[in-house]
Amino acid sequence: MHLVTIETNGHAHPGVIAGDEVLDLSAAGQFMPDARSVPPTIRGLLAAGAIALDRVRDLRDQALEGRGSIAHQLRESGALLRLDQVRLRAPIEDPGMVLAGGMNYHEHLKEMNTPAPDRPVSFVKSSAAIIGPADPIILPPACPDMVDWEGEFSAVFGRECHNVSADDALQYIAGYTLINDVSARDWVAPIFQAQGVMGPIHAWEHNLLGKQFPTFCPLGPVIATADEIADPGKVNITTTLNGQLMQSACTDDLVFSLPQLIEYYSRFYRFLPGDIITTGSPSGVGYGRNPKVFMRAGDVVAVRVAGIGTLSNRVVAS
Amino acid sequence: MHLVTIETNGHAHPGVIAGDEVLDLSAAGQFMPDARSVPPTIRGLLAAGAIALDRVRDLRDQALEGRGSIAHQLRESGALLRLDQVRLRAPIEDPGMVLAGGMNYHEHLKEMNTPAPDRPVSFVKSSAAIIGPADPIILPPACPDMVDWEGEFSAVFGRECHNVSADDALQYIAGYTLINDVSARDWVAPIFQAQGVMGPIHAWEHNLLGKQFPTFCPLGPVIATADEIADPGKVNITTTLNGQLMQSACTDDLVFSLPQLIEYYSRFYRFLPGDIITTGSPSGVGYGRNPKVFMRAGDVVAVRVAGIGTLSNRVVAS
Repeated sequence: MHLVTIETNGHAHPGVIAGDEVLDLSAAGQFMPDARSVPPTIRGLLAAGAIALDRVRDLRDQALEGRGSIAHQLRESGALLRLDQVRLRAPIEDPGMVLAGGMNYHEHLKEMNTPAPDRPVSFVKSSAAIIGPADPIILPPACPDMVDWEGEFSAVFGRECHNVSADDALQYIAGYTLINDVSARDWVAPIFQAQGVMGPIHAWEHNLLGKQFPTFCPLGPVIATADEIADPGKVNITTTLNGQLMQSACTDDLVFSLPQLIEYYSRFYRFLPGDIITTGSPSGVGYGRNPKVFMRAGDVVAVRVAGIGTLSNRVVAS
Repeated sequence: MHLVTIETNGHAHPGVIAGDEVLDLSAAGQFMPDARSVPPTIRGLLAAGAIALDRVRDLRDQALEGRGSIAHQLRESGALLRLDQVRLRAPIEDPGMVLAGGMNYHEHLKEMNTPAPDRPVSFVKSSAAIIGPADPIILPPACPDMVDWEGEFSAVFGRECHNVSADDALQYIAGYTLINDVSARDWVAPIFQAQGVMGPIHAWEHNLLGKQFPTFCPLGPVIATADEIADPGKVNITTTLNGQLMQSACTDDLVFSLPQLIEYYSRFYRFLPGDIITTGSPSGVGYGRNPKVFMRAGDVVAVRVAGIGTLSNRVVAS
């Protein structure tokens, strides 16, 4: 099942993909009494747990089957819309946290000339930077010249999760999505030139600040429920720039697998439904190329995983 | 004006302090039609801006004046409650971000044997760790022995804020509150022993993870609107442990003032209403003492600023 947030008259509505259409779960209640109890956001839907997800799956199936005259009525009323005619927003626009793994693909570490860490590395990505697939990435006026992509496979928590083992970790994941961890690289080089104990810490934080600009967290296009991804440890992910392949990896190259990341970070953090953990960038970022490649106004960057879809964003000047 | 979130029948309601009472803004609508348009959360109230705050101030004044029989009716219906009989929750329980300054008092840097940084240092404190003044700080089972306090003066954004100057910064602040940046110090020493470029970065992140445990972000007891604090650059703050003074500082000792922090971080982040920026800990933390002092089950830790109040929390074993 593929969950989305769609924009209807300027408002965000939760939806579910039904073939080449989207069922607007906020609008469906007129013809589908069961839709009236669906929470008004995808974050709320995930928090409501498996029963709520089963209900949405059933509503989706009713729309697909066109049982009775429901599908016709839904289309007439605008509650069942063609996917190519809706504006998708980020499936979750205000997660409590986006915890972003870093330096987590062996191939990416090679291109950044960095040894594999002995424990995970992460940072918090600002949820105020989240945009959906219909929104542009805006080059920041103060640092427009080194804006890079990082296409990442990401998991969405469905249950409160604290202090769990890797073996149990995936039970807490409701589904999967994609993030483009857009990064202004102006502050990468100083990390490797830093002196003393505080030097690298300051340089590292500055590097992370280059990931927090508005629009620097494209998210989506959907949340694929966990059953859609047979094995999150064997997911192929690609990133293209203007159609040209830039990143291509399998999550079996991760230094720390998704369950390992969840075990490690849940020792400290309490994750809540709708929180997102993203597994880090594969190799093939623009900064690691020779010559380096960065995004320019007019470019289109697209992250893709089969079963989730394509997260495609235009790049614009501010 | 002092804004609070109170617990009524297990639900969070926004409230405003009226003398030694609290006006429950969700319950007041029965007798005060103007209360019906007040957003259902303090975060929503701040986002609604100055007009909404003025309305709440007027409602507060009506309750204080006891105009007509309103105050009596409010008390009879449970919408005007004695402050000592309500359970205060954190005034904002789910901010989009808590950005926490670090290493930001000259005196604190001296006790940690760290030179003053040439630019601000910060981290994101997990909003899932937030508790209110009625909730206990729980010692984590895995690391209960080095849990420390950091009493901090904190500002709450009232407007979207990106790329603003220090001169304009305080216009974006709706009010002030207190945070206890509770910290398990088990991972502080490794920072100073770390080798190489990645060593300090790993050690620093591990140190920051020790600040993310559930209950490690006491917040409150109120949000004092900006007019209550004459000069945020001259605020006296104290922290006591079981009544004994542990921290005592004035924000005029900050390395980077609140406006400077906002200027610096808003170059990158887009702050939203309800987001919190906290200015860092004064000297007097337990780790900096000789001998070191840490919190034990049964302790009571209290952070105080005149005009905001006292954020007092019990410490319990898990």
